[in-house]
Amino acid sequence: MRAAALRGGRMVYRDDVPDPIPGPGQVLVAVRACGICGSDLHFAAHGGKVLEMTNQVAGASGGMHVDLDRDIFMGHEFSAEVLEAGPDTDTHPPGTLVTSLPVLLSDKGVEPIVYSNTTVGGYAERMLLSAPLLLPIPNGLDYKRAALTEPMAVGLHAVNKSNITVDEAALVLGCGPIGIAIIAALKVRGVENIVAADFSPKRREIAAAMGAHLAVDPAQSSPFDAVKATVIFEAVGVPGVINDVLRKARRNSRLVVAGVCMEPDTIHPFFATAKEISLQFSLAYDMDEFSASLRAIAEGDIDVSPLITGEVGLDGVGAAFDDLTDPERHCKILVTP
Amino acid sequence: MRAAALRGGRMVYRDDVPDPIPGPGQVLVAVRACGICGSDLHFAAHGGKVLEMTNQVAGASGGMHVDLDRDIFMGHEFSAEVLEAGPDTDTHPPGTLVTSLPVLLSDKGVEPIVYSNTTVGGYAERMLLSAPLLLPIPNGLDYKRAALTEPMAVGLHAVNKSNITVDEAALVLGCGPIGIAIIAALKVRGVENIVAADFSPKRREIAAAMGAHLAVDPAQSSPFDAVKATVIFEAVGVPGVINDVLRKARRNSRLVVAGVCMEPDTIHPFFATAKEISLQFSLAYDMDEFSASLRAIAEGDIDVSPLITGEVGLDGVGAAFDDLTDPERHCKILVTP
Repeated sequence: MRAAALRGGRMVYRDDVPDPIPGPGQVLVAVRACGICGSDLHFAAHGGKVLEMTNQVAGASGGMHVDLDRDIFMGHEFSAEVLEAGPDTDTHPPGTLVTSLPVLLSDKGVEPIVYSNTTVGGYAERMLLSAPLLLPIPNGLDYKRAALTEPMAVGLHAVNKSNITVDEAALVLGCGPIGIAIIAALKVRGVENIVAADFSPKRREIAAAMGAHLAVDPAQSSPFDAVKATVIFEAVGVPGVINDVLRKARRNSRLVVAGVCMEPDTIHPFFATAKEISLQFSLAYDMDEFSASLRAIAEGDIDVSPLITGEVGLDGVGAAFDDLTDPERHCKILVTP
Repeated sequence: MRAAALRGGRMVYRDDVPDPIPGPGQVLVAVRACGICGSDLHFAAHGGKVLEMTNQVAGASGGMHVDLDRDIFMGHEFSAEVLEAGPDTDTHPPGTLVTSLPVLLSDKGVEPIVYSNTTVGGYAERMLLSAPLLLPIPNGLDYKRAALTEPMAVGLHAVNKSNITVDEAALVLGCGPIGIAIIAALKVRGVENIVAADFSPKRREIAAAMGAHLAVDPAQSSPFDAVKATVIFEAVGVPGVINDVLRKARRNSRLVVAGVCMEPDTIHPFFATAKEISLQFSLAYDMDEFSASLRAIAEGDIDVSPLITGEVGLDGVGAAFDDLTDPERHCKILVTP
């Protein structure tokens, strides 16, 4: 079958990938759409670093066994159509549109669908999913918007972690897909004052379309002057941002760190001490948040269409990875195999 | 009157300090005991740095105006005896033993009693306090133990910030006065598993006397192996400790940073992201926590006597500052003018 795979830091098109065969509890699906995630771009550029850090955190409990010298399959923001269940497996009828947590259950255990030499992800014609995790796409929602369930769940999780109340002002730093997902979740929650900040005019425009009441260009004025925020979401993920927040935030601020920074970072703890700031690091989502995000999209509470700035086939994934480095051109590109 | 003052980085004895004169709302008191705080030692060694950082945090709103080339008065952990009220000021009768938040109210505003070229602190025969802030020392509690109210309030505040429940295990890193105060507050709260860590045998002994169920030597074994803690208190305050916690803590740990670190510090945010750790920075206490600590000491819920490892007069403050650098010899030295 056809797929795109990471080879030597570049996404290459292949038409010789063996078709996956569903085992018990698994379902073969045809991928209908798969969003390209910033973390995949990061892995393509710095895969060795990502594996090193992930394995350091996992420690004795294992970590990821990925060989960077072999092709790597990725793609974890997908919608798909049920084709065929594995042996002794009940599932939805063929043709059902579904999405799922990017996790594959097998007799070997639980494997995240994220980076793998063997388990095919969403940048492929077909892939395996786990029957117990399938969520049918409701309300006739189209498969392209349904593919945004996963990144929207990341934003919802960060907002849940913040414990923000509707009358607290929120400041969202960075309007890439994670920042945008946070803005969308804040809007659904009813937060009355959402200020976004991004250097890119295009990203600020999307932020406003998705629910930000004000979108600030940090090159023009400090977002910390634009709003007396007590809850700040960091969705940039590069060294220096956390310390900048500690320096500029108000007393008793709560910082939710949703950006993923793989580099060492320097902070001045005294800024945080003097103002008794809290930092909550946030990653991923749980099952409830994933379903709630699908529901919010299906019921029209979140309109993800402003995020979708491009669409490519499996042979266009390599170019799409390049294009995504320019925030003016793209936010989320869907791969539609 | 007599006092000890910081001059060129050393505490010097003086007998020529003008007697303070209470203004309206103020009370002249005779200092009975004043604990030497680690932050005073830090200020003596790195005063310029402390002022620079404090002023950076204060920004446009002011900061501290302290001239390091002139004598500086310090001492903020005190008990005292009421001598005389200022004009139009009602207060407790002369002879009443009191303690107070280290804050002086005057017609110029609110001034912390911490480092000042003009406002005398607790390292002196007499000082000014604010009538509305005076707390009489109850239950016949002696003035030496009452002087520990302030550091105990710092520990209580950190524990309150942690939202720890009695069945959560607590790990306290560092058993200087702040770590010990945290242990005491955890014990009062009824936390059933308190593990402390310090390189010093003497400090571990005090930790056990104050309520730690286990006191670990990090040179022998990792405190993170000794307890499955979800709530970790950092009471060391030197660069590197936060990152060490991020690296070794369990998933969903809550880290309360009570140590005050004035240096830049390097962290790997990814460790915190991968485990969704939260960090709550903690400083000082509020009025309620200050009174609750006095009450806990007076009612015998906290016995602070193991902490008090020495006592000096005003002419011994300089030597006491030196002695306190050795954790084997001392924890808290009281100045009794």
